[in-house]
Amino acid sequence: MAIPYASAMTEADFIARLRAIATDPAARGLADDAAVWEGLVLTHDMIVEGVHFLPDDRPQDVAWKLVAVNLSDLAAKGAAPVGVLVGYSLGDAAWDAGFVEGLDGALRRFGVALLGGDTVRAPTGTPRSFGLTAIGRAPEGGAPTRGGARPGDQIWVTGTIGNAGLGLAMRLGQVEPNETCLAAYCRPQPQLTFGQAVAPHVHAMMDLSDGLLIDAQRMAAASGCELGIMMDAIPLSAALLAVRPDVLDTRLAAATAGDDYQLLFAAVPAAADAIREIAAGLNVAVTAIGHAGVGEGIVLTHHAKRVAVPDRPGFMH
Amino acid sequence: MAIPYASAMTEADFIARLRAIATDPAARGLADDAAVWEGLVLTHDMIVEGVHFLPDDRPQDVAWKLVAVNLSDLAAKGAAPVGVLVGYSLGDAAWDAGFVEGLDGALRRFGVALLGGDTVRAPTGTPRSFGLTAIGRAPEGGAPTRGGARPGDQIWVTGTIGNAGLGLAMRLGQVEPNETCLAAYCRPQPQLTFGQAVAPHVHAMMDLSDGLLIDAQRMAAASGCELGIMMDAIPLSAALLAVRPDVLDTRLAAATAGDDYQLLFAAVPAAADAIREIAAGLNVAVTAIGHAGVGEGIVLTHHAKRVAVPDRPGFMH
Repeated sequence: MAIPYASAMTEADFIARLRAIATDPAARGLADDAAVWEGLVLTHDMIVEGVHFLPDDRPQDVAWKLVAVNLSDLAAKGAAPVGVLVGYSLGDAAWDAGFVEGLDGALRRFGVALLGGDTVRAPTGTPRSFGLTAIGRAPEGGAPTRGGARPGDQIWVTGTIGNAGLGLAMRLGQVEPNETCLAAYCRPQPQLTFGQAVAPHVHAMMDLSDGLLIDAQRMAAASGCELGIMMDAIPLSAALLAVRPDVLDTRLAAATAGDDYQLLFAAVPAAADAIREIAAGLNVAVTAIGHAGVGEGIVLTHHAKRVAVPDRPGFMH
Repeated sequence: MAIPYASAMTEADFIARLRAIATDPAARGLADDAAVWEGLVLTHDMIVEGVHFLPDDRPQDVAWKLVAVNLSDLAAKGAAPVGVLVGYSLGDAAWDAGFVEGLDGALRRFGVALLGGDTVRAPTGTPRSFGLTAIGRAPEGGAPTRGGARPGDQIWVTGTIGNAGLGLAMRLGQVEPNETCLAAYCRPQPQLTFGQAVAPHVHAMMDLSDGLLIDAQRMAAASGCELGIMMDAIPLSAALLAVRPDVLDTRLAAATAGDDYQLLFAAVPAAADAIREIAAGLNVAVTAIGHAGVGEGIVLTHHAKRVAVPDRPGFMH
């Protein structure tokens, strides 16, 4: 397919161009959560003020999120995190000090070393933008890809879905706030321990950053199969259901909101007991939400009735 | 030393706070060009429009510079580059396409794989900001630090000094342009092959990014010794001397300009023949510009007369 040049280039067009030069197998065609090279898993994610966080988010939370979103990519590859390098734009002193505090807290919490990085002072008034590279050790049996789901596999998610999206609405004053959803937005918890433990049992795994449905579409596309998702099976938290009725629209909103940083994975049905046992041992909730089949894309049902896939299945870049 | 909190925090203050949490030995106290972890050398440098490049610099050149400044850090540790991860803010389509072209060219030139990264769309009007993480293999004998210079060592530089600073002045229309200096500014050449070959012979090595004098001060501080620099020995290019008279002020200007990306290294005098042989074999110029001694900081001489260290010894962040 020809890629447009002089007209507006979308992020997808740009990534297509990058993919054309990322020919090393370790890059996984830039189509996975992370690169996998000689037993290491490497990822780099950026967060930008006004895009990935609010100008009045606490700097401690922004630092936490920067670490968490990258470690979530490692979790999705079953990797054990080792260290990070941080790219930081300096701002005002109190904010910067809060950021270091949050960075320290997140790195201690996840047992990860600060290895290096760079600081720059961007021109005054520039929205803040941060990058982080995280390095982890791949699991011994190899890091799962997004593309290994096979017809017949069960599709699973960890935790509950939609809390962070509702937490964002709470931060914006659109919804009466509660602690659980605000924490899901401000302090996402990468599923590192579970990711490492479950990796040998999965055919495919990825983290949920842009919304369950859009990310499921990506797993379906990478795997060359169809993913059937039961909307009624998607796990919602009590905190979400305290402010939203349990109807299809609520479930669609939860499944198209971003920032969950839960894991989506595919495994043979025979692995279900092992998966539940691992999850129980780590006190992580896991829920089977559907099956992979022959076909493409995602197919949604709600109480066994077919439901249309929303036009906007998640956060579109 | 107490670090100011609520008042203006400088980059140095911020880095001091980061250092306090970067306790892993691999981080080298954030005081080196790169982290060195399990035989790998890891670095992350950012470049920001209006700070590290001009708004009307060609996107091909900006991409080249982003790669080159990071690979130069690897060169300074004697590392062989392996791959990079890129953090990219999208802008207009033609610029983005030019950037990918330049990125491809630089990665091919240096034989480095694009392993991954992230793209974001920053709010309109935001100065562009890019980050790159480069990964290389450390030399077998270990990666030299900045801090190993010892009294009696000779101090060397590769190439010529000050071309890039003059190239920037040419880009700004302040000086009649010539190709050599413009190329030094637009297309810095990391000394990768020479860095790898010379690493076993040096006590300390770093790359020159902010200016010879300020970077020599950093090597002196890290090494706990004094570096004596002979201003008259600093190698200047014919292209620079074509537009500047060979006087002390010219040499001070060259030695306090940034973006040279040459290597500064310290080695015992007995290694001089080996160093010259390596350099000759690789067609790289090397020049002995001084000696390490007992003391601290840098001491400048010009034709054997003491010269004051300029108030601004390089690019101050």
